[in-house]
Amino acid sequence: MGKFIIIGERIHCISPAIREAMDNRDPEPILARAREQLVQGATYLDVNIGPAAKDGEARMEWAVKLLQENFDNVPLSLDTANKAAIEAGIRVYNRAKGKPIINSADAGDRRSYIDLAAAGDAIIIALCSRIGIPADNEERMAYCQDMLEHGMSLGMEPEDMWFDPLCLVIKGMQEKQLETLDFIRQLRDIGLNSVCGISNVSNGMPKETRPVIDATEIAMAIYAGLTAAILNPSNQRMMETVKSADIIMNNVLYADSFLQM
Amino acid sequence: MGKFIIIGERIHCISPAIREAMDNRDPEPILARAREQLVQGATYLDVNIGPAAKDGEARMEWAVKLLQENFDNVPLSLDTANKAAIEAGIRVYNRAKGKPIINSADAGDRRSYIDLAAAGDAIIIALCSRIGIPADNEERMAYCQDMLEHGMSLGMEPEDMWFDPLCLVIKGMQEKQLETLDFIRQLRDIGLNSVCGISNVSNGMPKETRPVIDATEIAMAIYAGLTAAILNPSNQRMMETVKSADIIMNNVLYADSFLQM
Repeated sequence: MGKFIIIGERIHCISPAIREAMDNRDPEPILARAREQLVQGATYLDVNIGPAAKDGEARMEWAVKLLQENFDNVPLSLDTANKAAIEAGIRVYNRAKGKPIINSADAGDRRSYIDLAAAGDAIIIALCSRIGIPADNEERMAYCQDMLEHGMSLGMEPEDMWFDPLCLVIKGMQEKQLETLDFIRQLRDIGLNSVCGISNVSNGMPKETRPVIDATEIAMAIYAGLTAAILNPSNQRMMETVKSADIIMNNVLYADSFLQM
Repeated sequence: MGKFIIIGERIHCISPAIREAMDNRDPEPILARAREQLVQGATYLDVNIGPAAKDGEARMEWAVKLLQENFDNVPLSLDTANKAAIEAGIRVYNRAKGKPIINSADAGDRRSYIDLAAAGDAIIIALCSRIGIPADNEERMAYCQDMLEHGMSLGMEPEDMWFDPLCLVIKGMQEKQLETLDFIRQLRDIGLNSVCGISNVSNGMPKETRPVIDATEIAMAIYAGLTAAILNPSNQRMMETVKSADIIMNNVLYADSFLQM
């Protein structure tokens, strides 16, 4: 298996500093967060410009060019509810370091994001849900198969479809945790890639507890077969765990200094 | 699934302080380590008196009585190459808080430890190896089945046989790590209990790295289906991870204070 893939989540318009920088086309706050995440081990950077109803296209073009020009064509995950903005981002995207990711399709209203990915030769993150939370893994698998067939009918390679089991919050849905891990294992067993937003599980927990639960969850998920995660690479415990998991899974050759790499 | 079971490893004659205390029948050093491990979350305490060729029986009797009288009949794991000492320990063992564990049988020279467990109505830790390291999981499973059949022929319940896949050191056997985790999963899938000495994997690594790898390994192993581990409950990162894993696996009901429990 390849090295575990980290998609850095911190360029997100939910952060007031990032939103303001995007509004004013101010490069520095965005470059600073990009640099930090890359140093800490992110492979992809997620670029979330929000719904961006007004000037989404210009905004995404600007962000894609800014990041790729400053960080040697770093691969990006384009994250917005504005489809035209995704198309605009892909038009200016440089593929030297890999295809773009589109974040995200689902089996409901956003099923057509798969068409965007097929048309733009991108990787698609495909949430295994339609409306709300899937009742069980049978429902997840039905959505997965529907999206997989749709993507393949449009000429996509299965390996470019990264399925997200939809990680659920422990506080309130504790009894559903094992199910999402087992779904990752099911995906792996049929040769499909998977991805998830790992820190969802610890939402609402005390601040000091969250990194502990998140790290435990990611270790389990990587053993289950997870391909990639959208996460905060500044979470040191999480990153140490990912590096350790890559050693245990034999994805990366052991060296005494592996935590520093 | 039940709560993950911790067998505290720190009453071990390899420690000079413990060996001396055993030699002199000095209770305090042993009671101090027992107390510490129980406070930190151990369920069982392993009592390793070494080969104890000379006075093994008296030594084990003394240690069993000492620990059970001071800690409300704490369940123990009796760990020695001296079979008469195990029998002596079982004779004075109080079962109010659970059966004793015998640590350990294997499929080779120590196969007869299964007979000891059957005769003494004890749990047996059964190493899935005969001589040296098993070549693969087929070999492990062959040993497991041989020991299981032998134990059952003597009237043992399968749930009282805890199979140890033999965790291997990463430095030197990195490519074998996934195999041991997958073997734990195989045992779980056929309904058998498993146990291992988790910190073996990080042997020889830098001191600051070991708890990171150990914690990652235990999270993966618990998701794989591990029933119990022999470990050092003073390893804070490991214990936090075990507590988090019990939450994710839904073995323990979530509370914001779960790390303090």
